[in-house]
Amino acid sequence: MTELLLKNVRPFGGPVTDILIRDGRIVRIGAGETGSGAVEDGGGAIAIPGLVEAHAHLDKSLWGMGWHVHQAGPRLEDKISTERRLRRELNIDPARQSARQVALAASHGTTAIRSHVDIDTDQKLWCFEGVSATRERFRNEMDIEIVAFPQSGLMIRPGTLELMDEALANGADVVGGLDPCGIDRDPKGQLDAVFHLAQKHGKPVDIHLHEPDELGAFSLEMIIDRTQALGMRGKVTVSHAFCLGMSDRARAQSLVEKLAREDIAIATTAPASRPVPAAAELRRAGVRLCAGSDGIRDTWGPYGNLDMLERAMFIGLRNNFRCDDELDHALHICTQGGADVMELKDYGLREGAFADIVLIDAETVAEAIAARPVRKLVLKRGKPIARDGKALFTVE
Amino acid sequence: MTELLLKNVRPFGGPVTDILIRDGRIVRIGAGETGSGAVEDGGGAIAIPGLVEAHAHLDKSLWGMGWHVHQAGPRLEDKISTERRLRRELNIDPARQSARQVALAASHGTTAIRSHVDIDTDQKLWCFEGVSATRERFRNEMDIEIVAFPQSGLMIRPGTLELMDEALANGADVVGGLDPCGIDRDPKGQLDAVFHLAQKHGKPVDIHLHEPDELGAFSLEMIIDRTQALGMRGKVTVSHAFCLGMSDRARAQSLVEKLAREDIAIATTAPASRPVPAAAELRRAGVRLCAGSDGIRDTWGPYGNLDMLERAMFIGLRNNFRCDDELDHALHICTQGGADVMELKDYGLREGAFADIVLIDAETVAEAIAARPVRKLVLKRGKPIARDGKALFTVE
Repeated sequence: MTELLLKNVRPFGGPVTDILIRDGRIVRIGAGETGSGAVEDGGGAIAIPGLVEAHAHLDKSLWGMGWHVHQAGPRLEDKISTERRLRRELNIDPARQSARQVALAASHGTTAIRSHVDIDTDQKLWCFEGVSATRERFRNEMDIEIVAFPQSGLMIRPGTLELMDEALANGADVVGGLDPCGIDRDPKGQLDAVFHLAQKHGKPVDIHLHEPDELGAFSLEMIIDRTQALGMRGKVTVSHAFCLGMSDRARAQSLVEKLAREDIAIATTAPASRPVPAAAELRRAGVRLCAGSDGIRDTWGPYGNLDMLERAMFIGLRNNFRCDDELDHALHICTQGGADVMELKDYGLREGAFADIVLIDAETVAEAIAARPVRKLVLKRGKPIARDGKALFTVE
Repeated sequence: MTELLLKNVRPFGGPVTDILIRDGRIVRIGAGETGSGAVEDGGGAIAIPGLVEAHAHLDKSLWGMGWHVHQAGPRLEDKISTERRLRRELNIDPARQSARQVALAASHGTTAIRSHVDIDTDQKLWCFEGVSATRERFRNEMDIEIVAFPQSGLMIRPGTLELMDEALANGADVVGGLDPCGIDRDPKGQLDAVFHLAQKHGKPVDIHLHEPDELGAFSLEMIIDRTQALGMRGKVTVSHAFCLGMSDRARAQSLVEKLAREDIAIATTAPASRPVPAAAELRRAGVRLCAGSDGIRDTWGPYGNLDMLERAMFIGLRNNFRCDDELDHALHICTQGGADVMELKDYGLREGAFADIVLIDAETVAEAIAARPVRKLVLKRGKPIARDGKALFTVE
């Protein structure tokens, strides 16, 4: 039996209390027996549950590889083809780069990650195998879920479907998809294939949908139809879903209601440069919302650091959240929202749950989001994995 | 004669060189005599000119006052009246709070600030006098320009005009204004009064314009008309100018062309939650663009830290800048763009200019913006004012 007593912490910024952890789980929040194990004094820090990175691309960052000068063209296709070429030219090794990102995420308080991983006929399963190796290597430090993701298209690159099938047979957790109109130009073909894989392997679905306005609405309705027809309620996530930011709010509302009916979740990065799903509107309709960093410092663009407190700030800024209760909700999206989508068992800052806990020196949750202080301590199932903004495990 | 040699630095991320500073000015960029004074080894850091905060509210932050729980209503008027009430209730002392902000700005590499300062019939000149005292106190550490700003309205609060006149006679540098339709409901009255003050005191104008779409376009045209009629070309700034983000791009373009003709500058915060002027469009048309943090952690909202490198990132994110040359332009907006609007003399990283210099450990300007590392060293006219992210002067 191992014990750890977190003394002098404030769950969600509330009153000071203690958290007793035993064998990786929270056994008591409140005063009482001090336990027989180690003690950490939180010094009055806020305690929140581990942050959840619900939309990452662990296979594709250039983190730690020196600065890459960005010159790729403006279209989605430019970035996809540039990346496919540079992966080998620059040796963006998926095992190494995903390990670096796990350490980076942990340093910022993230304890669970859903990562899309590219599968295409050039890379084949290289990216999947690299991220799978990282998942195994850090199985005690990070929950990692792998989405088999046809980044370069599914219908337009024959052979991709078979590779996805193989990945799903070998440990990929979720079936991915991508712009069935915009990339594959065959929405029926792609979506039938994606949902067929999901049915065959008994796995959930997470589809990138960048298509804007009425085109995205069209694809979204096709996703909703299949979710309903196949009884996959609660098992489907749509990432980005920019179409929900369309200016026709009545049309968007009708889509939101259908999403709620099929319990389809939305994953957002809260980008500043595009119309996006409105967090408050989704909340009112009962649509689950989670958030992620997307690719960071990769061949697509220079930004990002996997800090999900910063992401909560971006959600706040994008949605014009100014009141403290709105920022509490932004944190909810970056914690419980992601945990729900990943179906994490026994998640949360409560007795009985796994002790995935982050300590932050701030007065309130809103201040933590606005100021994003260095994370004081990060626990994964009761084990310290980062302290004072630095991961406690090393990667090459 | 005082000398400082900055060794081993890379101007804008270029090749390693030295910068020799004498009596507060850059006398040489390049190898040569080492000088007889102090030496700082930059360790290969990037050197950029001092960041310019071109739209701040130094009188109104709660920085260092403990967390304020935000509950103000959603309308602009709610925030204005909440603030007017809380200033005295919470004792948001303008002298103390502006001093704190000067130290905060310096810690992030800012060496010049244009601050709007509230003038109304409740506060009278309290805010102006407080920020004026701070300006005098830190005259060797920070260039501060004060805009006499009728935050609570000019026409709807009789007596405000006389107070602004008094502030301008006593050292305010710029005549401010605010939503002549939305707040004052008398666009002709307010704008005539503002431009009359500008003519009387021989000072430039900087008007907050939040009004969206065609309403903002209407007010903007009235501003353009007066600029032209009074021969104030190059002396007028419009802050925010959300109307330029209107969906009718042809209409917006016609406004942009008129702005270029009268050399009216735009100040932006690059907010994520509203349509905004497009940086690339303004650049192509030759309209000067500068940037600012706006109010930080005040009764209006919880965000902000006066970090103009972070602001450059927000500009990049808002404008979907992904290529390195686009991020170079974002830095230009946050340096030279602000210097132009403030008419700073002898500004820039060049021989003969004042030695306002920031050293940053990064490989390129784009990396500096994406990663926002702690500022290694900040010089104001050759004097260190911040090191390793901390101001070298103290405030209470």
